[in-house]
Amino acid sequence: MSSAFADRLAAALEKSGTPLCMGIDPHPALLPAFLSGQEPARAIRLFGQLAIEAAASAGLPAVKPQVALFEQHGPAGMAVLAELAELAQQAGLLVIMDAKRGDIGSTSAAYAAAWLGPHAPFAADALTVNPFMGMDTLAPFIEEAASTGRGLFVLVRTSNEGSGDLQDLDAGGKPVWQRLADQLARLDTGLAASLSGLSGWSGLGVVVGATRPQQAEALRSILPNAPFLIPGYGAQGAGPERARAGLLWQETHWQGGLINSARGLTGTDAARQASSPDSFQNAVLAAIRQARAELDSPRAAG
Amino acid sequence: MSSAFADRLAAALEKSGTPLCMGIDPHPALLPAFLSGQEPARAIRLFGQLAIEAAASAGLPAVKPQVALFEQHGPAGMAVLAELAELAQQAGLLVIMDAKRGDIGSTSAAYAAAWLGPHAPFAADALTVNPFMGMDTLAPFIEEAASTGRGLFVLVRTSNEGSGDLQDLDAGGKPVWQRLADQLARLDTGLAASLSGLSGWSGLGVVVGATRPQQAEALRSILPNAPFLIPGYGAQGAGPERARAGLLWQETHWQGGLINSARGLTGTDAARQASSPDSFQNAVLAAIRQARAELDSPRAAG
Repeated sequence: MSSAFADRLAAALEKSGTPLCMGIDPHPALLPAFLSGQEPARAIRLFGQLAIEAAASAGLPAVKPQVALFEQHGPAGMAVLAELAELAQQAGLLVIMDAKRGDIGSTSAAYAAAWLGPHAPFAADALTVNPFMGMDTLAPFIEEAASTGRGLFVLVRTSNEGSGDLQDLDAGGKPVWQRLADQLARLDTGLAASLSGLSGWSGLGVVVGATRPQQAEALRSILPNAPFLIPGYGAQGAGPERARAGLLWQETHWQGGLINSARGLTGTDAARQASSPDSFQNAVLAAIRQARAELDSPRAAG
Repeated sequence: MSSAFADRLAAALEKSGTPLCMGIDPHPALLPAFLSGQEPARAIRLFGQLAIEAAASAGLPAVKPQVALFEQHGPAGMAVLAELAELAQQAGLLVIMDAKRGDIGSTSAAYAAAWLGPHAPFAADALTVNPFMGMDTLAPFIEEAASTGRGLFVLVRTSNEGSGDLQDLDAGGKPVWQRLADQLARLDTGLAASLSGLSGWSGLGVVVGATRPQQAEALRSILPNAPFLIPGYGAQGAGPERARAGLLWQETHWQGGLINSARGLTGTDAARQASSPDSFQNAVLAAIRQARAELDSPRAAG
């Protein structure tokens, strides 16, 4: 990797013309029909390969494997994850590993080595991380990412029902998630400045749920240069206007983040009923076309 | 597993007479000298096996593998982790998997299946989890743990330098970590009641740093039945009085939690300089004896 993640992401968004990221979420119950009865590691490998091929042929900028769905299959599942990440990168896709790791000191450094290091067995272009333990626990991730040209997406405001339990607690007139964003802004001008690209974007991104447009806009004002990773498009009911809150239209394309869809692309009724690899990929490609029609124009219906 | 984790932990603490838990933290730079030059997966496997044998022969109640240090070696490292967990359980030790996982909905369920499920590839007696995304994200872990007799340790107040960044924010007169503890208390009488054992202890435990004794005592009053997982003993400078804050002396032994030490047991100078498996185990056993002398009595010097 010869450039900063921030710049590779900005270039991928411009080239592909879409912020749509494909989630690679091989839930056992959502695999296409033709994979039923297959040995699990083999089934998720085929699912992932076919999904990645479709994403690449549709010109998407990135894929986001959901690590839990590989980890539940043990070391064999993790080997599939490593293989698929390599396949996706070879196909020209950025790989956002959704692992939500986080720990302290030298333990964080070990997670960073696993996902962001020069010999990372699970090689990501960017990794999702959990900030609950404090800003110092992000430092080893930032240092590793800076040295290998990779990036981070820090959980700030998620889209699940209970996300407010901690994130929305009022902490001196501001919710906890805004306090966290303020701390990330300070980090972005300090230690994480080493992640900045020539494009002006940072490599210290944030995860912000698509169901909270006002929060996305508030977050954009606190972190003007942070790429957003926006999960929950489609399946969780967020329309395109909501999903794009916080992204910036730049003449021909949306800049400043990725909008992830997993079930909406690979888990539609047509995809799940597919009786062959071809029919699965056709269903995925159709779903991508539909999502792009909603997302890619400067002002689609909300 | 025929009983609840809460009861197995209470029984192990009584039988062993010590709250000392051995951290299995195979940092590449801290492995004993006789393993230098070995292939990494083989080295961490031998290190773990020897440490587990020492823990079992010293009669400790539990070991806590640090997952990051296996994950950084890829699928082969994760296979070693699975193997060591089985070895430890066969040796009569409880296995606390320190993975700090956390995600939403069906993704949490996949992590729960990986570590707590009936066919968990990485079989834990209990798992550390991260609550940042909200109480609903703990539900799949609780449900899985209840059905398999396993337990959880939820991060509440950690011991790293920056732990206060979010955990100590003032949220309406109480720090965030106390608000979190209040939410866990409600969970403990609700969904997590299914984790309660016959011993009166809960299977919904908490992680609380050994460097914060007043916080441990405050947390004990909010969560009277929660086992504590107390990291940071020894290496991070917490003395025995501090580490035991929040535990309860019950005639012959400390009840209500585990005090973890990793470097203090397997990473001492003598352990690291060991030129053979025997000398490594002797060093570990000596360190265990010393830690037990400090920790096991009702009132040792603080």
